[in-house]
Amino acid sequence: MSIGVAYTVTVRCQIDNRPGMLGQLTTRIGEVGGDIGAIDIVRAERSLLIRDLTVRVQDEVHGESLVNAIREIPGIDVLEVSDRVLQAHRGGKLTMQSRVPLKTREDLSLAYTPGVARVCRVIADDLEKAFDFTWKANSVAVVSDGSAILGLGNLGPEAAMPVMEGKAILFKELANIDAVPICLRSQKPEVIVQTVEQLAPTFGGINLEDIAAPACFTVEGRLQESLDIPVMHDDQHGTAIVVLAALRNALILAGKRLADVRAVVNGVGAAGTAIIRTLLEAGIGEITAVDRFGILREGDYQQQSTMQRIVASQTNRDRRRGGLDVALHGADVFIGVSRGNILTPAMVQSMNADPIIFALANPVPEGDPDMLRQYARVVATGRSDQPNQINNVLSFPGIFRGALDVSARQISSAMRLAAAEALASAIPPEELSEEYIIPSVFNRLVVPTIANAVAQAAIDDGVARVNRMPVRGGD
Amino acid sequence: MSIGVAYTVTVRCQIDNRPGMLGQLTTRIGEVGGDIGAIDIVRAERSLLIRDLTVRVQDEVHGESLVNAIREIPGIDVLEVSDRVLQAHRGGKLTMQSRVPLKTREDLSLAYTPGVARVCRVIADDLEKAFDFTWKANSVAVVSDGSAILGLGNLGPEAAMPVMEGKAILFKELANIDAVPICLRSQKPEVIVQTVEQLAPTFGGINLEDIAAPACFTVEGRLQESLDIPVMHDDQHGTAIVVLAALRNALILAGKRLADVRAVVNGVGAAGTAIIRTLLEAGIGEITAVDRFGILREGDYQQQSTMQRIVASQTNRDRRRGGLDVALHGADVFIGVSRGNILTPAMVQSMNADPIIFALANPVPEGDPDMLRQYARVVATGRSDQPNQINNVLSFPGIFRGALDVSARQISSAMRLAAAEALASAIPPEELSEEYIIPSVFNRLVVPTIANAVAQAAIDDGVARVNRMPVRGGD
Repeated sequence: MSIGVAYTVTVRCQIDNRPGMLGQLTTRIGEVGGDIGAIDIVRAERSLLIRDLTVRVQDEVHGESLVNAIREIPGIDVLEVSDRVLQAHRGGKLTMQSRVPLKTREDLSLAYTPGVARVCRVIADDLEKAFDFTWKANSVAVVSDGSAILGLGNLGPEAAMPVMEGKAILFKELANIDAVPICLRSQKPEVIVQTVEQLAPTFGGINLEDIAAPACFTVEGRLQESLDIPVMHDDQHGTAIVVLAALRNALILAGKRLADVRAVVNGVGAAGTAIIRTLLEAGIGEITAVDRFGILREGDYQQQSTMQRIVASQTNRDRRRGGLDVALHGADVFIGVSRGNILTPAMVQSMNADPIIFALANPVPEGDPDMLRQYARVVATGRSDQPNQINNVLSFPGIFRGALDVSARQISSAMRLAAAEALASAIPPEELSEEYIIPSVFNRLVVPTIANAVAQAAIDDGVARVNRMPVRGGD
Repeated sequence: MSIGVAYTVTVRCQIDNRPGMLGQLTTRIGEVGGDIGAIDIVRAERSLLIRDLTVRVQDEVHGESLVNAIREIPGIDVLEVSDRVLQAHRGGKLTMQSRVPLKTREDLSLAYTPGVARVCRVIADDLEKAFDFTWKANSVAVVSDGSAILGLGNLGPEAAMPVMEGKAILFKELANIDAVPICLRSQKPEVIVQTVEQLAPTFGGINLEDIAAPACFTVEGRLQESLDIPVMHDDQHGTAIVVLAALRNALILAGKRLADVRAVVNGVGAAGTAIIRTLLEAGIGEITAVDRFGILREGDYQQQSTMQRIVASQTNRDRRRGGLDVALHGADVFIGVSRGNILTPAMVQSMNADPIIFALANPVPEGDPDMLRQYARVVATGRSDQPNQINNVLSFPGIFRGALDVSARQISSAMRLAAAEALASAIPPEELSEEYIIPSVFNRLVVPTIANAVAQAAIDDGVARVNRMPVRGGD
C-alpha cells in the first residue's frame, strides 16, 4: 500500500556532459523501482551537468538503495539527497503574526507602553477579562513529553515537535485556533502536571498529545481537577469520539441499536481505555476488553494497571476467560487499537451477523482490509488510503472550537458525547453506506457542526463562562 | 506632559433628536477639557440619534469625569464607553499562522502523518536537527510571573499577558522572531526555574520579563547555568545595554573616556544592578551605587541583599558614606532607575564639568528634564516625548536576532557588550548631538546592526552552534 508523498526524494547529481548519460540514469532508476516525478537542470557547463531528479520511492530504505544504485553509475556523482518532507519542515511549520499594526510611535503607545498599562489594570481588577483582552480565549497549548510519538514510541521532546507543530497548524487551518506546540523535558507525570499548571494563565485550553499510558491518565485527570480551562488528551478522547461517531453510523447500516450490541475492544492503552469509557457513557450494551494477556476480567489482577482494573470492573459481565478468539465469539463489534494482522477469517466468522470491524492499528491494521471486507458488514481503519478512516483530526478541532467559543471551564462527558453525535450526523442518513460511515477531514461542515454541539452542551452542562451560542460567519 | 493615545475614549450617546443638542454636548466636553477627535453617527431615528464621540482625555480619572459630565446633560444618555486601547486589545494582539499549505490530502500527509514521522526520526537521531526542522531556531518564549509589570507592580500572570503579547509583536515586527507570551502561575523562583527548564526543548531562547528583584537574579542565573539556549532577563540586560550605548555617545560629546569617569547609579534593583555590572564589564572608571538607604559600601551589610553585597564589593572604591548628594559630588555621570523628582539643581551643579544625566524613572523622571538640561551637558530619560529615550525596545530584538541566527547556546558578556557598541554606532559620530545620542526605535538599521555584532561575538566567543554569519536580505 502506498503512503504517497512521504517518501519522495530529490537527488542532485553531477553528470558527465556526454550523450546517453541521462538515459542510463533514468533506466537505472526505473530498474530499482523508482518513479521519476521531475528532472530539472540546476547548472550546465561544457563538461558536466547538474540535475535534480525528484523520485517517488516506497520508503526510506528504498530511497537509500536508489541513491546507492545511482552512485554506482560511472560518470555520475550524487551531490545531495533531499526530500519533500524534510524540505517542507525546514524552519518549522508555524509562525507568529501580529494582529495590530506596529509601524508608528502611536501604534507602539497603543499596543505596548504606555497604553498597555490600562489593559493590565483592567485584567488585574477582573481576571475573567483576560478572555476579552488577551489571546487566551482563542489559544490552546499542545503539550507533549514525546513519550509516545505517533506509532514511533518514546523519542523525547525534541523529536515530538514536528507532530505538535503539525497539530497546531491543523488547529489553525481547520478551526482558526491559535495553538502553541509545547514539548516538555520531563516524562514524569508529576512534573508534567506541575508545568502545565504553571502555563494555565496563558492559554484557554490544553491539548495533551502523544503521552504514553499510564502517565497520560494521571496527567489528564489531575489537570482536569486543578485547572479551570478545558484539558483533553487527544489520543484518548479524540479517537474515542470518532470511534463512537463511526460506530453510530455503522450500527444504522447493520440495523442494530447501541444498547443491544457487545463490542470487543482489543488494546487497553490510552485510546482503548478512552474508547471503552466513551462507549459505556454512550450506553453500549456490553464490552469485552482484551489486552495482550487476554480478556480483562474483574478479580484477575495480575498484569493489570489501576486503569485496567477499573476497565475490568466495568466490562466482561459474562465473565469470559481466554484470548481474542473467545472474546469475539458472538460479538457484534470489534474495535482494535493494538497491532497488525491478528484477526483471522475464522474469528470474524464467529461474530454475530453483520459484524462491524474497526481495525485501527497503524500503519498495519489488525486484519487485511480486503479480507475483512469479505466477512464483515462494515470495515474501518486508521489509514487514509482505505475508506472509513478513523482519524482524530475529525474531532479535536471542533471540540476545542466549541469549548473556546463559550470559554468553557472543562470538556465534560456530555460535551464529548455531543461531539460524537454531531460528527455522526455530518453524514445525512440517506448518504450512509458501508464505505462511507464517517466524513472526510476536508468536509467543511465537520468543525462548525461539532463546535455548535459542544458549545450548546457546555452551556447546558453549566461549564460555559459565556452563555450564548457563537455566531459563525462563512469563510 | 501628554502620554497621547493611551487615554482616548469613545462615548456612545443616545441624543434626543432636536436642534442644539450636539452644540450642548461638544461645549460641555470642551468645558471639562476633552479634545474631540471624531463624531460619528451610529443610527438616526426620528426622535433620537446615536452618536459615537471619540475624545482625547488626560487619564482614566479625567475620562470618568468627562463621561459623568455628559451624563448630566438632559436629553442625552451614555450607552457605552470604550476606548481605543481596549479596542485594540480585544481578542489579543497575536495569532499563529501556518507556514505550509494544508488544503489537500497530500498537504496533510506531508505536514502531519504519515510524512511527519520521518522528521521525528531525523531529529531523534540528532537532536540538533531540531534547529533545522522545527520552529526552534527562530522562536523565543517571553516568560513572566507578573510580579513587576511595567511600573504597575505585582498584578499577577493574567494581567501581565498584554505586556508579554506586546513584547511578542515587537519581536516579530522588529526582528521577525516568533515569540510566545508565557505567563506563569507561581512567583516562586524555584518553580519558575523548573517550569522554564521544562519548556526549553520547544524554544530557541528565553526572554524573562517583568520579574521582580531579587527573584529575577536567581531565576536568570540558574536558567543560564542549566539551559543550552540564550536566557536573558530583559529588564536587567536590555536596559543596561541601551544605557551603555547611550553613555558611549554622550561621553564622545563630553570629551571624556569611559575608563576615566565615575558614574552614580541610583536604584539597585533589577535594572540598576545590571547597569552596574555592564558598565564594569565595559571598563568604566568607577561607580557609586545608591539605594534608598544611601551609598552602598562594602562592609555595611544592613538592609543589603546578596546581589547588593556583590555590588557593594565592586563599587565605591573611595568608600564614601552618605546619600545621593554625597555620591554626586564630583561625579561625571548620573544614571537613575529609581523614582521621580529627587535631583536638585544643586546636586547637578556639584558634579564634574559637562555632567551626563540619565533620569530613567517612569513615568516621572528623577528630575524635570527642562531643569536638568539647564545644568547638564546631556540629558536622557525613559520617556517617548523627550529627546534621547532610553528604551529597551532598542536592544532585545537585535540581541535575540543575532543569538538565534547562529543558534547560540547563551548570551555571553561579550555579546551584550558588542550589542551596546553596535547600538551606539548606529548614529554616525558626525550626527551626534546633545539631543541625539541614541537612535529611534523605528530606525531600521538598529536591529540588523546589533544582530550582526551579536552573532559575530557569539562565534568569536565559541557559544555559536552555527559558525557562519547570517546573510540578511532586504525587507
